[in-house]
Amino acid sequence: MSELKSLEWRHGKVRYIDQTRLPLEERYVETDDEAVIARAIKGLEIRGAPLIGIAAAYAVVLAANKLHADHPSETVASLDKVINVLAGTRPTAVNLFWALDRQRNVIERTKELGIASIQQELLTEAIRIHDEDSATCDRIGEHGAAVVPNAANILTHCNTGSLATGGIGTALGIVRVCWERHTLRHVYIDETRPLFQGARLTAWELQKDRIPFTLITDNTAGFLMQQGLVNVVLVGADRIAANGDVANKVGTYSLAVLARHHAIPMFVAAPSSSIDFSMRNGKEIPIEQRGGREVSEPFGTAIAPGETEVYSPAFDITPSEFVTAIITEAGVLRPPFAESIAGLRRSKSL
Amino acid sequence: MSELKSLEWRHGKVRYIDQTRLPLEERYVETDDEAVIARAIKGLEIRGAPLIGIAAAYAVVLAANKLHADHPSETVASLDKVINVLAGTRPTAVNLFWALDRQRNVIERTKELGIASIQQELLTEAIRIHDEDSATCDRIGEHGAAVVPNAANILTHCNTGSLATGGIGTALGIVRVCWERHTLRHVYIDETRPLFQGARLTAWELQKDRIPFTLITDNTAGFLMQQGLVNVVLVGADRIAANGDVANKVGTYSLAVLARHHAIPMFVAAPSSSIDFSMRNGKEIPIEQRGGREVSEPFGTAIAPGETEVYSPAFDITPSEFVTAIITEAGVLRPPFAESIAGLRRSKSL
Repeated sequence: MSELKSLEWRHGKVRYIDQTRLPLEERYVETDDEAVIARAIKGLEIRGAPLIGIAAAYAVVLAANKLHADHPSETVASLDKVINVLAGTRPTAVNLFWALDRQRNVIERTKELGIASIQQELLTEAIRIHDEDSATCDRIGEHGAAVVPNAANILTHCNTGSLATGGIGTALGIVRVCWERHTLRHVYIDETRPLFQGARLTAWELQKDRIPFTLITDNTAGFLMQQGLVNVVLVGADRIAANGDVANKVGTYSLAVLARHHAIPMFVAAPSSSIDFSMRNGKEIPIEQRGGREVSEPFGTAIAPGETEVYSPAFDITPSEFVTAIITEAGVLRPPFAESIAGLRRSKSL
Repeated sequence: MSELKSLEWRHGKVRYIDQTRLPLEERYVETDDEAVIARAIKGLEIRGAPLIGIAAAYAVVLAANKLHADHPSETVASLDKVINVLAGTRPTAVNLFWALDRQRNVIERTKELGIASIQQELLTEAIRIHDEDSATCDRIGEHGAAVVPNAANILTHCNTGSLATGGIGTALGIVRVCWERHTLRHVYIDETRPLFQGARLTAWELQKDRIPFTLITDNTAGFLMQQGLVNVVLVGADRIAANGDVANKVGTYSLAVLARHHAIPMFVAAPSSSIDFSMRNGKEIPIEQRGGREVSEPFGTAIAPGETEVYSPAFDITPSEFVTAIITEAGVLRPPFAESIAGLRRSKSL
């Protein structure tokens, strides 16, 4: 199984792989500067909803480690500022806000104990978030492998693997477990425009693990289903509303409609930390708009005439009625999702 | 309206715009060598089902013009060879075979009259094919503008304009007529991976005509429809079977399923020469498979790891039940298409 560490805590620094350079270059960045992490999240060097949360948690540690003053109020104010900057990097993945809230709680709890304690507790919490995510991925993999049919021909979108999480991945973690158990036949990867996370990142991960896959353009998915080449659609989530509506990489909604039409199950794999109980439905989830050049100038090559107007939402909303099941570390949620999600919330006292 | 000539007969030569260089470079090629035309079709310098037919017809003229011998059987044999080479350039667009059949008939009819007559008649027929296509586009534009709703927000795929035809285009010709008549509100263009014909070619044509448009990635189409931003899907066709099944640029089928789900009409615009009465249904239409590098190395930049396996059909099949109407020069065909297409065939004595 994947030994890849997309992000690590090492001797007081964060070391991460710059995902914008993959697959051409495996470039690792080591930094003790929280601003570098914030920029890396904004610039997609670090991406994937769970990994963004982990990175942000460590970034708060880096900021705290710079503080020498032992004036609690200044410490809190200064860290608050850092947390706000981190919260402003990307709007859609809820794991970011969830991880920052956990660090905010740590600060609140420890602020009277002196800077050394604050630093120590923040690091402990960041490592806990990281370790929990790894364990969460393993459990998602277990639950997912139990519901994916035998001889699975899985179509997946974007990247939901080790590069997106602190472990084996969410949707891609399930792929890995199915492969180990010989219930996987083949994986089809959407290239995932505009940033090609499928072609660049998922292909790279699967190749490292020697799992057989085929790359397609996003617009080939329908034809693939029509030909009976896919029997499971398996994606991640950046945020899930209380009613089960799913915000995920743009194109997920199209896949969901296509899967429904072809009677193919559509599974969403995500940690329960991706569920935002405060959002009643998907319409309330903020959708990040990306700059047009990612579409009109991929890798710096202009493919459209100058001044072409581009509409480029990074995510879309899949209404819960298209989702067969949501696979979390706490179990497999089934429709009606409003009830199963409320049940999960009660069981976890979230 | 567009004054663009994507391909012209000029003083015994064919002059065409190299569509692989657009929009970055407007490079024109002038040639009296039929092999150059064959390579240009194969290499997509000349593309679009109707334009491929026109180019092939002229290529036969170029070949005939090289012949000096006045031995009818040698002339026929030599031109037959050229026609076979041209027929082998691309498999899906039926207009290619239809145009070559027309030239084959000319040769059959004139073969005893001497090389000068053969040359003259082949040129006359090629110009007729070209002129007919231009007139066909105009009529498709008329018929289409009559069925497209007022305040149309059109989503189109690939390129079906002056670059794809001998006139104003098929689906894009309708867009042009709607724009002139102020019934067009906006055009959304799918970028159309792998070769970006929407981003490169359709955007270029619309910008020249100052028609307002927005570019999207192919996988954004569903989200666009979900938000009510599209009220017509309008595409071309490379071949239409006798039952109304449509072969068109890959991604068309996904759009058709999405359009159906959102109760948006799905119009196919094509000359009746794109109908292949010998194909009972879409399953019989040969689908061209393209090389994987167009997907994994767009514009020479590797986006996927080496040796990534790619599945890249150039076209897909949209079953006729997804098609609201087929807009031809001879009128608007409605379901049941087996009947309306048979009626068209009888009326044209095809």
